Amino acid sequence: MGGETASRLLFLTETKPMTIQRISSPEVTEPAPGTWSNCLKVGDTVYVAGLTARDRNLQPAGGDEYHQARLIFERIQHLVTAAGGTMRDVVKLNIYVTQIANRDQVWRARREFFEGAFPVATLVEVSALAQAAILVEIEAVAVLGHGGRPS
Amino acid sequence: MGGETASRLLFLTETKPMTIQRISSPEVTEPAPGTWSNCLKVGDTVYVAGLTARDRNLQPAGGDEYHQARLIFERIQHLVTAAGGTMRDVVKLNIYVTQIANRDQVWRARREFFEGAFPVATLVEVSALAQAAILVEIEAVAVLGHGGRPS
Amino acid sequence: MGGETASRLLFLTETKPMTIQRISSPEVTEPAPGTWSNCLKVGDTVYVAGLTARDRNLQPAGGDEYHQARLIFERIQHLVTAAGGTMRDVVKLNIYVTQIANRDQVWRARREFFEGAFPVATLVEVSALAQAAILVEIEAVAVLGHGGRPS
Repeated sequence: MGGETASRLLFLTETKPMTIQRISSPEVTEPAPGTWSNCLKVGDTVYVAGLTARDRNLQPAGGDEYHQARLIFERIQHLVTAAGGTMRDVVKLNIYVTQIANRDQVWRARREFFEGAFPVATLVEVSALAQAAILVEIEAVAVLGHGGRPS
Repeated sequence: MGGETASRLLFLTETKPMTIQRISSPEVTEPAPGTWSNCLKVGDTVYVAGLTARDRNLQPAGGDEYHQARLIFERIQHLVTAAGGTMRDVVKLNIYVTQIANRDQVWRARREFFEGAFPVATLVEVSALAQAAILVEIEAVAVLGHGGRPS
Repeated sequence: MGGETASRLLFLTETKPMTIQRISSPEVTEPAPGTWSNCLKVGDTVYVAGLTARDRNLQPAGGDEYHQARLIFERIQHLVTAAGGTMRDVVKLNIYVTQIANRDQVWRARREFFEGAFPVATLVEVSALAQAAILVEIEAVAVLGHGGRPS
């Protein structure tokens, strides 16, 4: 019985190889090769690049901060889902905006994707994002498989 | 004896459920529901939101960069302590200031909270933080229970 | 045999003490004491501070974004190597530039250091970095020993 328990443990330990995995979703166009990855998973941790509101052809989707943040959170959700998780696994957001006076619009979009204890977050106004039409960029870290989140 | 050892291992393994925990301190007012969490803990890792110098009513505390950074590090310390750690467990700081020429004041405050090998840090000047009176925002990552830090 | 297996497991578990280690390289001058660390390692994770293009005397190296980013990636490579890893272990980059219109120069430098699935990345324009001659600052997270990265 000691041997059986030990073998089970060995199995549990060795089925967690923390290979770096590239995560992609058919819903989120990957950037060009030789630039960056949208999402990498190492062990239970999922790193999502700073995403902006872009369509399938990677053109800026336009719209205000609410509209852009909504599209970004949808893209994050697609990637975290593709990685085997849900938005309940997102623990950290870094939000960059070009007009901090409009941050409530980002918050409004965020409320549509999270509940209970929201992710920790940092929101700052930067002097520019990749293109003038891009008003919001959001990066995320998720940790999967840890039983969701308290209220 | 094999069985005993195996059981102890099983215990060690299963007492590390990496549930996401919300960490709060009576000293640090939580933001309004539906916005963000000040601090989440997953396993040994503690994520602290970008904090600013605010009083218990979440009003900007005012003062210069030194004063604000001091208040922020106190808030970080309260949260990391509530998570079961100390400032020696803080491994990473991201510091956003509105006037980079005054960064020495942030450093001066930081020296009052750390010793030995300081956390890795990034400090950049952003074009604006949440309100005009807010001159500094600091986010932190801590990893608990790993025997402190070398000199 | 159960006992032997269990002992091996115990060994595996206990040889992973996640002490915080300061990582330094003879090629990368550490900042002054009481400021920050260039690189800390906790378990398999390596945190690299926001680095800029500086020479051995910590003076800004000057040059354009391509030149500066190249020097920064070299410094990151020295530190990750000193930590026991390679650039294939880098999972996340945060890039701060002062002129986002020149970001292609940072990308060009990055292509000389990565292959296959690039790290996730966020790139934003900030209003200032530590000195006027500093055009780029890059921080990195690496996770070691996980079998490289897919293409």
